[in-house]
Amino acid sequence: MKAVHEWTASEMLAAISCGRITVRALIESCLLRISARDDDVRAWLWLNADALAQADRLDALPADQRGRLHGLPLGVKDVFDTIDMPTTHNSSLYQGFRPAADAAAVALVRAEGVVLLGKTDTTEFAAAGRNAATGNPHDLTRTSGGSSAGSAAAVADFHVPVALATQTGGSTIRPAAFCGIYGFKPSAHLISREGVKVYSISFDTVGWMARSVADLQLLAGVYGITERLRAPLPNADLMIGVTAGPHAGALDKEALHALDTAEKRLVAAGHRVKRLELPTAFHALDLQHRTILRREGAQAFRALARTHGTALHDDFHRLVENRDNHALADLNAAYHAIAQGQQMFDEIASGFDLILVPSAPGVAPVGRKPGDPIFNAMWTALGVPCLNLPVSGLRDVSMPVGVTAISMRFDDVALLEAGRRIAPLLISLSSF
Amino acid sequence: MKAVHEWTASEMLAAISCGRITVRALIESCLLRISARDDDVRAWLWLNADALAQADRLDALPADQRGRLHGLPLGVKDVFDTIDMPTTHNSSLYQGFRPAADAAAVALVRAEGVVLLGKTDTTEFAAAGRNAATGNPHDLTRTSGGSSAGSAAAVADFHVPVALATQTGGSTIRPAAFCGIYGFKPSAHLISREGVKVYSISFDTVGWMARSVADLQLLAGVYGITERLRAPLPNADLMIGVTAGPHAGALDKEALHALDTAEKRLVAAGHRVKRLELPTAFHALDLQHRTILRREGAQAFRALARTHGTALHDDFHRLVENRDNHALADLNAAYHAIAQGQQMFDEIASGFDLILVPSAPGVAPVGRKPGDPIFNAMWTALGVPCLNLPVSGLRDVSMPVGVTAISMRFDDVALLEAGRRIAPLLISLSSF
Repeated sequence: MKAVHEWTASEMLAAISCGRITVRALIESCLLRISARDDDVRAWLWLNADALAQADRLDALPADQRGRLHGLPLGVKDVFDTIDMPTTHNSSLYQGFRPAADAAAVALVRAEGVVLLGKTDTTEFAAAGRNAATGNPHDLTRTSGGSSAGSAAAVADFHVPVALATQTGGSTIRPAAFCGIYGFKPSAHLISREGVKVYSISFDTVGWMARSVADLQLLAGVYGITERLRAPLPNADLMIGVTAGPHAGALDKEALHALDTAEKRLVAAGHRVKRLELPTAFHALDLQHRTILRREGAQAFRALARTHGTALHDDFHRLVENRDNHALADLNAAYHAIAQGQQMFDEIASGFDLILVPSAPGVAPVGRKPGDPIFNAMWTALGVPCLNLPVSGLRDVSMPVGVTAISMRFDDVALLEAGRRIAPLLISLSSF
Repeated sequence: MKAVHEWTASEMLAAISCGRITVRALIESCLLRISARDDDVRAWLWLNADALAQADRLDALPADQRGRLHGLPLGVKDVFDTIDMPTTHNSSLYQGFRPAADAAAVALVRAEGVVLLGKTDTTEFAAAGRNAATGNPHDLTRTSGGSSAGSAAAVADFHVPVALATQTGGSTIRPAAFCGIYGFKPSAHLISREGVKVYSISFDTVGWMARSVADLQLLAGVYGITERLRAPLPNADLMIGVTAGPHAGALDKEALHALDTAEKRLVAAGHRVKRLELPTAFHALDLQHRTILRREGAQAFRALARTHGTALHDDFHRLVENRDNHALADLNAAYHAIAQGQQMFDEIASGFDLILVPSAPGVAPVGRKPGDPIFNAMWTALGVPCLNLPVSGLRDVSMPVGVTAISMRFDDVALLEAGRRIAPLLISLSSF
């Protein structure tokens, strides 16, 4: 039988709702797990000392005043402002910084009754500079991925069932893949980022980590992602595209094996699967993403560079000074090219329920570097929804590996539904 | 001779720099002006009680420690977070709210030595709900325009030489036009909006009010807008396009007269002027802007709607509940259409140094409503730089009226230079 802290969010909410467990007992179980594990994992930068008192207050609340996430333990990446805990961005400049309000994305789940267990470690400002100290729960010598390192590890290691993350390049999908959990980056601009550190106006996106797709659907509902973009395709089984994409040459054998295995298992389950070639224009999306990221990043860190001088990590001065020489004309061209890519991708993706692509070049590397975003940045640039699905039971692969399900921009509801259908097929323990 | 508070920012900085005036004397002059006028104008929601003490500290600072805006009085729209003054967004929900940090756009000018005189009135959350109480300095029965009502009036009425504003539809250009001053909305995503209330991720832009184009150039330099997009056109005189745009039918005779007069004066000065027709696709940009604004606005206000219920103005619940039924598919189509419009506009604008368009349907209306953004929203949607230039000396026009100079996205530096050249021609007192 699973320990309480190992339940999914949906299981926890159901158990609280029917009185099988108190919020206090649930929070105690999670805190004990953190206490036993976090000296090694280092997922957390700050723990909420008031969590048990909050649990008691929630337990005392009449049923008709309870929110949709009543009593749910939640981790929050330390780039979200929180009114009751410091927000440090893992930066020496922000140690002890106390925001005057919650980020909008925090306020919304707090109003629904979550218990914030604390703030999770992150690459500095979710951007560059200092790495998170977090280890991968499956092998502590390895990274849990970045920038949402702590949120991924905390969920994978059963400290919390769900956690808030962000993605600007690959900062949600990649750590989810490295840690063997479900991670979701919604379509661009669907969730308020107010009170979240800005890196790129165009690309920063609030995302979530969870141990089931159902839990991601639960969060999508709370955040107002409930509308369908289009009518379902007229087939009972799913129409699934598969492509290694324009950077296939960067995939190692574990990642290739995961994508091939996913394809075989889906075919075996009766879904229609088609291998895709993406247009050659897609090869440049990663570079265009980088041009925009660096120019937008220059604006995001200009004031900190001016006010803190060399106390700010040189990575950010590099951005502000545009040392990589991204010209304004290149920036303009990059915006245009990405807009054209979005139009092309809409046409391609309209023929599929979802498309499977790699989540990362391979398994989590040794060390604490966040890893390469090359398999994520182009999809973030296109603003499409991205769902990491773990692929397990692979021969000769001992670390987690995942594939990303993507779909048309704003097709989030249908993508999560389709992802929920195929997720169990991918964690099959068969020998494919 | 002009009183000290009537000087432009550039004149004030020069006088301080050569010791002709102290920061204290300058700030005193501005505060006296505010004290004499603001019971009527109502530009300010909060005045900085520490301003004179800050002036004294700046006067005591050795020359080598002085910033580029040393001693300059500045107004800040009350949607920017300020660490030393409340930030209310003109909302009952935020009365007395004290942010823990400056907005990035405030931190940057504070580091350069400005003296923040206070926070200026605004349409609630720079979006909807409650109007600013500000009157137009040229006729107090009329609006000074919205949403940056207080910033425009404060500059026009000589309370401060420059003020920070924002624009999501027409919130900088329109009040600048109504108040007879220079207003600038830079190209999209060139200035950090961190710590500024979010309405639309795609469209919110930090802008400035000033009494000269040179002062706008000064601010552009401080905010890092210093790079040219393209080589200058190969003509000594300017190549200028003129168009009333797709909503010409909504222009009243004052606004038409201003555009025609601007054209005649520019021709008389020897510039090459060409009347333009915009592609028919541009007719829909205003509607596409609105679709995106409302869907992005729903996300921006979702947490406030959840946490404050009916205490939040119904305008924002209307957004959150999507009562105007903007479908996700329409949102996706609107993003695509605007991206195509950006491509088309680049091609059109590449043949001109600048293009003149109307700033508003006419002069400032009686009352306190912010006015119609129909002549601004499409340019905000395209992300192009917009510069309001007052046109004065018009027969039978007793209130200020302006025209907007626009150019290619990211052509801000050249647009400000060209605007500075033609600005004196448009305020000619000749009888054209």
